Amino acid sequence: MVDQATKGADVTYSVKVRAEYPNRPGMLGTIASRIGQLGGDIAALELVHADRATMVRDITINATGLEHGQRIIRAIRRLPNVRVRHTSEPLFNIHRGGKIELGIKAPMETQTDLSLVYTPGVGRVSMEVHRRPEAVWEYTSRGNTVAIVTDGTAVLGLGDIGPEAALPVMEGKAMLFKHLAGVDAWPICLATKDPEAIVQTVKLIAPGFGGVNLEDISAPRCFTIEERLKKEADIPIFHDDQHGTAVVVLAGLINALKIVKKEFAGIKVVLAGVGAAGMATALLLQRMGVPNIIGCDRGGTLYRGREREMNPAKIWLAERTNPENIKGALGDALVGADVFLGLSGPGLLKSEDVKRMGRNAIVFAMANPVPEIYPEEAAPYARVMATGRSDYPNQINNALGFPGIFRGVLDVRAREINEEMKIAAASAIASQVRPSELSEQYIIPGVFHKGVVPAVASAVAEQAYRTGGARLPRPRGRGSRSAA
Amino acid sequence: MVDQATKGADVTYSVKVRAEYPNRPGMLGTIASRIGQLGGDIAALELVHADRATMVRDITINATGLEHGQRIIRAIRRLPNVRVRHTSEPLFNIHRGGKIELGIKAPMETQTDLSLVYTPGVGRVSMEVHRRPEAVWEYTSRGNTVAIVTDGTAVLGLGDIGPEAALPVMEGKAMLFKHLAGVDAWPICLATKDPEAIVQTVKLIAPGFGGVNLEDISAPRCFTIEERLKKEADIPIFHDDQHGTAVVVLAGLINALKIVKKEFAGIKVVLAGVGAAGMATALLLQRMGVPNIIGCDRGGTLYRGREREMNPAKIWLAERTNPENIKGALGDALVGADVFLGLSGPGLLKSEDVKRMGRNAIVFAMANPVPEIYPEEAAPYARVMATGRSDYPNQINNALGFPGIFRGVLDVRAREINEEMKIAAASAIASQVRPSELSEQYIIPGVFHKGVVPAVASAVAEQAYRTGGARLPRPRGRGSRSAA
Repeated sequence: MVDQATKGADVTYSVKVRAEYPNRPGMLGTIASRIGQLGGDIAALELVHADRATMVRDITINATGLEHGQRIIRAIRRLPNVRVRHTSEPLFNIHRGGKIELGIKAPMETQTDLSLVYTPGVGRVSMEVHRRPEAVWEYTSRGNTVAIVTDGTAVLGLGDIGPEAALPVMEGKAMLFKHLAGVDAWPICLATKDPEAIVQTVKLIAPGFGGVNLEDISAPRCFTIEERLKKEADIPIFHDDQHGTAVVVLAGLINALKIVKKEFAGIKVVLAGVGAAGMATALLLQRMGVPNIIGCDRGGTLYRGREREMNPAKIWLAERTNPENIKGALGDALVGADVFLGLSGPGLLKSEDVKRMGRNAIVFAMANPVPEIYPEEAAPYARVMATGRSDYPNQINNALGFPGIFRGVLDVRAREINEEMKIAAASAIASQVRPSELSEQYIIPGVFHKGVVPAVASAVAEQAYRTGGARLPRPRGRGSRSAA
Repeated sequence: MVDQATKGADVTYSVKVRAEYPNRPGMLGTIASRIGQLGGDIAALELVHADRATMVRDITINATGLEHGQRIIRAIRRLPNVRVRHTSEPLFNIHRGGKIELGIKAPMETQTDLSLVYTPGVGRVSMEVHRRPEAVWEYTSRGNTVAIVTDGTAVLGLGDIGPEAALPVMEGKAMLFKHLAGVDAWPICLATKDPEAIVQTVKLIAPGFGGVNLEDISAPRCFTIEERLKKEADIPIFHDDQHGTAVVVLAGLINALKIVKKEFAGIKVVLAGVGAAGMATALLLQRMGVPNIIGCDRGGTLYRGREREMNPAKIWLAERTNPENIKGALGDALVGADVFLGLSGPGLLKSEDVKRMGRNAIVFAMANPVPEIYPEEAAPYARVMATGRSDYPNQINNALGFPGIFRGVLDVRAREINEEMKIAAASAIASQVRPSELSEQYIIPGVFHKGVVPAVASAVAEQAYRTGGARLPRPRGRGSRSAA
């Protein structure tokens, strides 16, 4: 396998060409050959028009990048007797007009329908909620609705691109919520970066939502914002970049450790990247009993007394990790390590670095789209390898976590998402790889694995009952409710 | 026709009874007779189970009120050999779990789909919006999405019931937006009554929305909030209780005046109720050239120098209306009036009051559910009569206005909804009653009239082009775009 982003033809760079050419044998072959010569992959062929003289076809061609696609289009234009009527990009076609809409769940065809879902009937429902506030969970969409809140400051790997530019990502996230877990999520993109304003806004819009998924808010502001909201709002607040990642990393690690027959209590973990995701992962691993975690950033290891490039979050972490107070580069920290967790940037790890690790090394290189090290390079020294990519085995993907976690908290009307619930979610994800299936190449289920969401939801709901965070009482004589 | 809310059996008070009884002739007749004796209307009969011995049916019965429904249920329970298994209320059944959800507009079945609608593909779309901000209107849901914002302080006629209790109404409104005009609207219910906090919150969430429909915010705060937002936000802000009502009242009045052959420039209008809706209606009528408007509240006419029960909005209105500065009760103001507009409370107007009005009196008694005067009582003296109810002719219903107005502004990506656009909307609604159809009994189309939304949208879009409020250029060689 190769790096799609730089080497292989990729659907995200596909172009759609409407080509008109004379209806005679060999014409399509000529076009297809030219595309093939240039390294394009024909992904789809649709007939638009055909008569005795003329054929018109839409040809969808996967390319390796923007310029590659344009080069292929130019080459088709230059073919004799071929006229390119127009071109478009499937990626942008799919996004035209947005990816989400309002869905209506009650009939709305007649005056009678209207008198139930709107005035005058709805007034009785409103008065019921006014009289008995918990009825809002029964008779409105609140009980199944999550706000996806961002300020657009840390969108994917693209950085601070602003709330409008974040919207396509938030819509994609909303689709994942709905498709995987039946959760109705709506994007709320905020025109401010001020933590205080973000906290206030989320609190003020909370009456319409059953939970809040904070998304793509940059560190260290994300820590303050989440901490404040967890205290001040009475619905679950979950910063997915932190905790969603931590949960899925933990899920993968649970199974990876089974393969190498090690325990959390005995391992040394080196963590590259101490932003939102790294910080939460370190904390969750400590909770699992990992005694030796060393955080690293671009400046090397985090240690007590370090003064360069520190911030309150890093100082906090340095005080609680790195028990031997190792000072040095990432490579120094890796000597004898059991696990490398990369939540940093492309190509950070060299083959020699992996070689320094202990026997049966576990390497999670999760930078996206280009990992800290490619599996091919780590292979000689890593026993178990995971990335953030879908084209290699063992994809560590947040979509394994947040849909089921929110499904679970909404099912029991939980007030919070606590540590017990996160660990339960990670165990549930890990458990979807059956012992007979578990191998170096399969430590974590795929995003579309049907068992994941119900298992996670039910585990999270169970913990909500146990830890007292659920508004709903436990149903008698049944397991936890969950939309399977 | 009768007052449904107090006299007739009504679907909003219907009960659903699951009755089990022996399978023998006459049993269902006995049950039906008992229901009829008590004044219940059987609205639906569904067979749940039948064998030789036993029948089980769901019987839906419209009742006149809560107690009436319960009385009918008790009577059925008392019938010999009939067992009521359970009962429910269709109104609440329809509301269970809420009335709205997220809809997904792009495919989401495979890893390839995922790589387009989410990572890595979506990153290219986000960067396009970052590079070229207007692309947010092309490639996201923003261009078709409206926030329905309320603080729950003036919900229907129920008053300050809070943001959670407002949610069922906002969901109903969202359904109307979608069903009638294809607009995706999401409720935002705010946990504050502070105008400053409301203004700030709306501004901060604006990046995800193409417009804001303010809803059920009490006067006089609603005036400040709307005024501030119109200045400070660059998307259309529309307080429907004010302007939606004013537009539809104007639409009805345009046609009513045709019947009585009077002009706006020559009429005297008495307006009972000077809250949000009354204030906006007065202003819009002045803009139409009406020279004599007299506003009234519970304390009688608004006049310059009045000191009782005034507020800045009322003082403002008193200074600009009531040219003869008439002091007195509503009845005093009505002497010789051409039009009565009621946006106040039940039963305010007596038959004698209508008698005092001029010849060919026009009476819009729009208080809901019980109007200022019932058409039967006004009939001897009113030539044209309208109410807010669906069970009398000429329903003045906001749903004739806001869906098409927002359809129009979204179609051209307008920055505002100005006076020209409102008047154009009113004329478009009025125009849907053809001259051959126009009569005292039909001055305004019904809510489900198919022509209204396209006509309003296209008229509003045209005004947006003319007044420079449209972001999109006028399409060449075509009329205005509109989702019909």
